[in-house]
Amino acid sequence: MALQPRPTPSLLILALIPVAGTLIIRPLLTPLSMGTLHASFGFAILAFVAAIVIIPAVGDDFIKVGLKGRDLLKLRGGDILSSCDCRPESMGLICASVYILLLIHFIPFAFSSFLLHPPVEEGLAGVEFSLAQLSVYLSAILSLLIATLLGFIDDLFDIRWRHKLPIPLIAAIPLLLVYYAENGGTSVVIPKPFRQIFGNMDLCTIFIYVIGARWTWTLGGVYAAGLSYGSKELVERHLLSLYFMLPLIGVCLGFMYHNWYPARAFPGDTLCYFSGMAFAVVGIQGHFSKTLLLFFIPQIFNFVLSCPQLFGLVPCPRHRLPKFEQSTMLLRPSVTEYPHPPSKLTVLTLRVLSGLRLTRLVIQEKTNIIMTSTNLTILNFLLFNLEDLGIRLGEQGLIFCSILAFGIRYGLAGLVYDGDRR
Amino acid sequence: MALQPRPTPSLLILALIPVAGTLIIRPLLTPLSMGTLHASFGFAILAFVAAIVIIPAVGDDFIKVGLKGRDLLKLRGGDILSSCDCRPESMGLICASVYILLLIHFIPFAFSSFLLHPPVEEGLAGVEFSLAQLSVYLSAILSLLIATLLGFIDDLFDIRWRHKLPIPLIAAIPLLLVYYAENGGTSVVIPKPFRQIFGNMDLCTIFIYVIGARWTWTLGGVYAAGLSYGSKELVERHLLSLYFMLPLIGVCLGFMYHNWYPARAFPGDTLCYFSGMAFAVVGIQGHFSKTLLLFFIPQIFNFVLSCPQLFGLVPCPRHRLPKFEQSTMLLRPSVTEYPHPPSKLTVLTLRVLSGLRLTRLVIQEKTNIIMTSTNLTILNFLLFNLEDLGIRLGEQGLIFCSILAFGIRYGLAGLVYDGDRR
Repeated sequence: MALQPRPTPSLLILALIPVAGTLIIRPLLTPLSMGTLHASFGFAILAFVAAIVIIPAVGDDFIKVGLKGRDLLKLRGGDILSSCDCRPESMGLICASVYILLLIHFIPFAFSSFLLHPPVEEGLAGVEFSLAQLSVYLSAILSLLIATLLGFIDDLFDIRWRHKLPIPLIAAIPLLLVYYAENGGTSVVIPKPFRQIFGNMDLCTIFIYVIGARWTWTLGGVYAAGLSYGSKELVERHLLSLYFMLPLIGVCLGFMYHNWYPARAFPGDTLCYFSGMAFAVVGIQGHFSKTLLLFFIPQIFNFVLSCPQLFGLVPCPRHRLPKFEQSTMLLRPSVTEYPHPPSKLTVLTLRVLSGLRLTRLVIQEKTNIIMTSTNLTILNFLLFNLEDLGIRLGEQGLIFCSILAFGIRYGLAGLVYDGDRR
Repeated sequence: MALQPRPTPSLLILALIPVAGTLIIRPLLTPLSMGTLHASFGFAILAFVAAIVIIPAVGDDFIKVGLKGRDLLKLRGGDILSSCDCRPESMGLICASVYILLLIHFIPFAFSSFLLHPPVEEGLAGVEFSLAQLSVYLSAILSLLIATLLGFIDDLFDIRWRHKLPIPLIAAIPLLLVYYAENGGTSVVIPKPFRQIFGNMDLCTIFIYVIGARWTWTLGGVYAAGLSYGSKELVERHLLSLYFMLPLIGVCLGFMYHNWYPARAFPGDTLCYFSGMAFAVVGIQGHFSKTLLLFFIPQIFNFVLSCPQLFGLVPCPRHRLPKFEQSTMLLRPSVTEYPHPPSKLTVLTLRVLSGLRLTRLVIQEKTNIIMTSTNLTILNFLLFNLEDLGIRLGEQGLIFCSILAFGIRYGLAGLVYDGDRR
């Protein structure tokens, strides 16, 4: 039956390990032009196997220390769920650990030509480039690890929202500083006029922070990458991005197996923080940050839409997920209820949002008092708007947004951005 | 009364913040030859203040999620302690977070000359050196962060001892790989004959791992540093080590305030892992790894002495700390009791250890059966040996070991090591 927890996969999955091993070791034995990419693919398979095998193995330990949750969309009557319905939370910690560990072990593969053949006689240009790339690679891992640790601390201690705000800033600092350093070494980042102003001042350290902060706040610094177009090392950079992406796909597929409805494990904040940072890393490294930004359109829309609830203009319940309606087997938008008439400011905000079709209100006819409003998330927004059109859809709707993003990128790029930039 | 928990320090401590701020900002405004060192000292003060202020603030949250402990040496009758005697554990997480955050924000100070004045016209030598140093710096932070995360996971999930073994290896990999890379770029690491053998083989990636593993197992790679003596950048390296050490001292002093007997907070495995890694980092970076090793003589002795209990030859109780004897106000060695006669192998081991004066046995006279043996730790070893000499001492004994280490380093170094090496 569909509601049984997903079984631990058979040991057949372990058969993938020798495949991965072959992919990893082969380029070491016979020189191969695409060897590093093969190795990366091998690492991705390892990540997949590790996530599939480790998550069920450690689940009970996570539940024991209180890292557990329930599937809110689960098909169950009533509110009382027995303790055996609890599933381990924060499995992102496992995913992140596996991912980061593999990335670290990938260093000798990505930089072997540099690490193993110290180019004493070959001049310094080659060294410099590799060291710069290594710095970027290391700082990316550092940012990922900070995001992981902060995400896990958040899971464990339930950090307050206002304390959470600086988290992306903190986590992105190493990446941004080194990104800046790397560009300083290989191409021009500071426009010439600024250089004349800032070049001789020691106030520039402050300048780095200001730039870093600005970059971070504009969505994890993805805009920043646009500054250094026209670089020569495009291929290397895209390869490096691929080295980060392949194991991420592997580990996420492995996690998805356990998270697939009905969920057997939950990601926790850890996975969200860490995978978000991974996307930022890849966007910055690969210099396709603007394309990446397009893929985040749903997230950006969701954040902007959530602001009235996040900033307290509209009351915010703990969970804002759509509700699963057992009788019709459909997802319905969740609502915030107003047992007492809301304040004037809240009423004004809700009326404006309702006028923009961003929320749906239920209003008592006689008194004209707002009784409920749908929660301000993209899922609820999509659900009630589609319902109004007679279409009943779920999360699949997000897939259309991604397709839309691709369309904009390759169809309308010329209209939105200058030609050269990525 | 001495047993009252230490009070939260007065807000006067916050007066240190402007002092730190001045130290940090001054070199930015007026160029100063020792500016970076001043800034580092400012960061150390910040670390101290942060540890003092944050630890009591978050203590209750740690206790709430089960990270709590009791002071086993506390002056209390009986075994039953009320829950209010619990003190937060794993405060190393706070120390490590503060420390790593400050180290990251120190990057622009340590590398500002390179970050801010991209030496396009000055040739590549300068760039290469700074980038190499930056890579080492980043990899050091990465190693510290991995040690912290693993330590915290250990605190939370109580990892089994055999799973703990690879932890230092995993945590030290980034540092060792980049240390190797940095040396590859700036001085000769692989001896010439090995180069001829390994130089043209792609098997060299495996070679890196083997070297890395060997380095790590010999106490976190501290021996490895001995390989590249005669380097020209000694001053910069020692400065970089200082930049790592000053904030560590600051944060540890802040923690010590709360950990001082009677303890108000406990370090957990997190602090041990992370500070151990910090010492390894400094030792490797500063190339004074052998001196460092001497300071670890008590730890090494303790580990070797503990092996029979760790490997199961002798039963091992959960806590092996000396006991506090309330009647005499003295520390007494703790013992393992044998309700059943121990196995032949255990008896043999204990007899040998007893012959070497490493443990003290209590033997039933008639049957010649071992009743108790003191636990195999350096503290118990010191206590019962000093007791036999009529001296009653506590942990202060360890201070003598440190003085001894200094003596060996500067008095007997010529006998132990070749002249040039540090």
